[in-house]
Amino acid sequence: MNSAALWQRYQDWLYYHAGLGFYLDVSRMRFDDGFVQQLKPKFDQAFQEMAALESGAIANPDENRMVGHYWLRDPDLAPSDDFKRDIEQTIEDIESFVQKIHSGATCPPQAERFTDILSIGIGGSALGPEFVAEALSPDLPPMGIHFIDNTDPAGIDRVLARIGDRLNSTLVLVISKSGGTPEPRNGMIEVQHAFSTHNLDFSKQAVAITGRGSNLDNVAKSQGWLTTFPMHDWVGGRTSEFSAVGLVPAALQGIDIRAILAGAKEMDAATRLPEIKGNPAALLALAWYFSGNGKGEKDMVVLPYKDSLLLFSRYLQQLVMESLGKEKDLDGNAVYQGIAVYGNKGSTDQHAYVQQLREGVPNFFLTFIEVLHDRTGQSIEIELGVTSGDYLSGLLQGTRQALYENHRDSITVTIPEANAHNVGALIALYERAVGLYGFLINVNAYHQPGVEAGKKAAAAILDLQRNVVQVLQAEKTPLPIATLALRAGAPDQIEAVYKIVRHLEANQRGVKLYGNLAQPQGLTVSSL
Amino acid sequence: MNSAALWQRYQDWLYYHAGLGFYLDVSRMRFDDGFVQQLKPKFDQAFQEMAALESGAIANPDENRMVGHYWLRDPDLAPSDDFKRDIEQTIEDIESFVQKIHSGATCPPQAERFTDILSIGIGGSALGPEFVAEALSPDLPPMGIHFIDNTDPAGIDRVLARIGDRLNSTLVLVISKSGGTPEPRNGMIEVQHAFSTHNLDFSKQAVAITGRGSNLDNVAKSQGWLTTFPMHDWVGGRTSEFSAVGLVPAALQGIDIRAILAGAKEMDAATRLPEIKGNPAALLALAWYFSGNGKGEKDMVVLPYKDSLLLFSRYLQQLVMESLGKEKDLDGNAVYQGIAVYGNKGSTDQHAYVQQLREGVPNFFLTFIEVLHDRTGQSIEIELGVTSGDYLSGLLQGTRQALYENHRDSITVTIPEANAHNVGALIALYERAVGLYGFLINVNAYHQPGVEAGKKAAAAILDLQRNVVQVLQAEKTPLPIATLALRAGAPDQIEAVYKIVRHLEANQRGVKLYGNLAQPQGLTVSSL
Repeated sequence: MNSAALWQRYQDWLYYHAGLGFYLDVSRMRFDDGFVQQLKPKFDQAFQEMAALESGAIANPDENRMVGHYWLRDPDLAPSDDFKRDIEQTIEDIESFVQKIHSGATCPPQAERFTDILSIGIGGSALGPEFVAEALSPDLPPMGIHFIDNTDPAGIDRVLARIGDRLNSTLVLVISKSGGTPEPRNGMIEVQHAFSTHNLDFSKQAVAITGRGSNLDNVAKSQGWLTTFPMHDWVGGRTSEFSAVGLVPAALQGIDIRAILAGAKEMDAATRLPEIKGNPAALLALAWYFSGNGKGEKDMVVLPYKDSLLLFSRYLQQLVMESLGKEKDLDGNAVYQGIAVYGNKGSTDQHAYVQQLREGVPNFFLTFIEVLHDRTGQSIEIELGVTSGDYLSGLLQGTRQALYENHRDSITVTIPEANAHNVGALIALYERAVGLYGFLINVNAYHQPGVEAGKKAAAAILDLQRNVVQVLQAEKTPLPIATLALRAGAPDQIEAVYKIVRHLEANQRGVKLYGNLAQPQGLTVSSL
Repeated sequence: MNSAALWQRYQDWLYYHAGLGFYLDVSRMRFDDGFVQQLKPKFDQAFQEMAALESGAIANPDENRMVGHYWLRDPDLAPSDDFKRDIEQTIEDIESFVQKIHSGATCPPQAERFTDILSIGIGGSALGPEFVAEALSPDLPPMGIHFIDNTDPAGIDRVLARIGDRLNSTLVLVISKSGGTPEPRNGMIEVQHAFSTHNLDFSKQAVAITGRGSNLDNVAKSQGWLTTFPMHDWVGGRTSEFSAVGLVPAALQGIDIRAILAGAKEMDAATRLPEIKGNPAALLALAWYFSGNGKGEKDMVVLPYKDSLLLFSRYLQQLVMESLGKEKDLDGNAVYQGIAVYGNKGSTDQHAYVQQLREGVPNFFLTFIEVLHDRTGQSIEIELGVTSGDYLSGLLQGTRQALYENHRDSITVTIPEANAHNVGALIALYERAVGLYGFLINVNAYHQPGVEAGKKAAAAILDLQRNVVQVLQAEKTPLPIATLALRAGAPDQIEAVYKIVRHLEANQRGVKLYGNLAQPQGLTVSSL
């Protein structure tokens, strides 16, 4: 296709939203009109299903749940007045709470005001808040934020070391729907321990964001925590950024949450249109379907050319992969679906792996995210008439062109500025695109049955560990690992037992290994 | 395979290095002995080629260069005494410079001592230093580090805002082999501008890490910068972490660079063995080859279960993808090689996309990185007999098992502790594995011809921008975009011209668009 034809194709497929100043360009995906026609019936069906979802149908059949994240930014759409009031009240409660924290009206027992936020959560309770903090936190925020998003002891220690003496002025957010997920539960217990060793009263500095009536909710209420905010049954973790999960930490950092919600609402209105060409989420889903043949045959590489959007691809990893990565479709057929997502930022990643993208395995399509506004204030000229931002812009254009010439397709999303309004719109766009694509490929995009298996296996390992330690403590002489496994009631789990004792020994937990470490089956084990 | 057979396979293939306390487990990759036999001749050849490379053969034929990164940690191997002395002298110079910075003997003009490091570099001049800073920087480092690794104006502004008043005590490292790469060059000019608006003398706070005789080297010397450290012609960017590129920022942060080098040297000795089963890098290359059929058919997902190793996969993206992602093999055949790499950390990523990994598209293999030592000091118990670290360990074991049950293969790398020695060893392991794999698939793993195209296209865009602005400044009335392109001498680049003026307008650069933004070809453009 010559440049005139490409320019025509660019304009034929360009989506522009005047209110948002938002552009979507799918002209460098090589689908043709026949493909669009072929997919139209699937899209018509998807639009209907999406409308039903938005009006409160059970769109997550396996868990018998409504899927209500669209109501969070447009409460008028909620299927009942109770839901509507609940959403609006939560936002008001957040604003009023944050106002008291910022003014010092609510302050910690041993300091004049709260200076820091420590957010404890994982998955949907971390990725949105982390992305938004990186994208939108002002240079001098009213409160700095720290995240514990794992159960790594050294990682927890590092976060606490960085907070240091300011622990007495740190507001702790514990974010967990049930309160039972091990990682945030462990993080909370570790932080409570740190508070107690510093003679600080955790409950006077803690906030729970959790399901009403959950175990965590009960603990927070009975211990008199500062407050609690709700996580609703009808909002999934990976679409919870516009609930209290995302809004509380954002507001505490001084980010305009009403602008985030307004941007999302505006994008929602645009992506509700039941027509492929006029709906940017449908265009994205179309492009994804084309590229990966509706089976995820190509990876989605996401490159925002803007440092502050660095974590968008990590956010999308969950939104896209956990939603779409399913073994079975809704009819029970084995389909092994999904789309793998990765990427950091441009032009930085050009110097990391554009070599492979341009020349190597053609197993991906690229999404460029362009931000028109370079910076607050004017730029100096690096060369005559050229700024750093011109370079960034030129590198995006150049890379898109160089990849296209080598038959690597790309999508370009353009936003005017990386601000709260547009970040809200961006999240809403991808939520809708994932939802539509889920309908196109006929999977339940709102559950995550595959996550349980690893958790159950991990719980079994911890049970086994308890048994192993018990056996060792009752035994005077070193036991071969196979014997230890047998006595621990798990003769077929010798390898698991070996790994357990290896880890216990490395942490001075009263276990000692004897023998040649290169030959595990010859090792013997004793308690110290 | 039942658990007894798996346990036997685990032991049959377990690699253990006593000096490093390092384990590599490839038992969950489903290759058989026949496959290993089949690959043996290729490996024998690869071992020979690697030995030649290490002794100074031209291993990068396209650029007619030696590939000498292995000499950096074992200067006795260098092919000449000059090289050897140069390497040793550089390390001594680094230590002596850093000692003077830490002691305050070398101090900035307007402060008692240097407090911060600002590192300006991209690609191989950023990814290693960023990974090592995150992995090894002490909780309370003698100097904090900041990175400018892009040409994003807002990103640069944010870094400078975070440094704030400490700019007068910030040591700037400009890392660029030629000095001509636009991103670090732009970052340097922006930072110099910030110094000058703060009435600070940049040259008294700046260090260049660059090729001898490069443009940057000449500038640094003529302006009297604090010092310069060399980047050698025989060290590629993506394998430069053990050169001044990596060692200078590490040493400034108080990281033990001798330990990093010693760990790498020890791993090098282990991976030099010309035998698959006794060589952990060969085992990795074998597993990669098996999984992706020697063609990169599966992505490499890398999950370190340790927060501090978060950036390892970003580091590996460059090392693996830029080395292996090649269109042509050494005989000139089109092969479209490479292996896509992504991942962040466990167990965090379990809550993001293990759903897809376990149930969805089976287009990947996983690498678990296990760290046996949980933390400095003792852990509290979260439940009876169980710590946060036991959870982390159990979640790794459980996920590995759950994935394997669903026919998803994995490799497990185990290190005793995430310290300088082992991080050095880890980098050396992957450098060698990539080198061996490159020989197996017969590509030049040490050049990056595909990176140029995007850069050239970007430079052309900037030339076009200058022409466009010139035309607009000479013209009184608004021009249609097609006319503007024609007058700018680029009638076939209307789309590029459109994007240029759209970007200029968004940044108040004296350009104005008129018309309906949804229909680019109807727009007219004028200078203000």
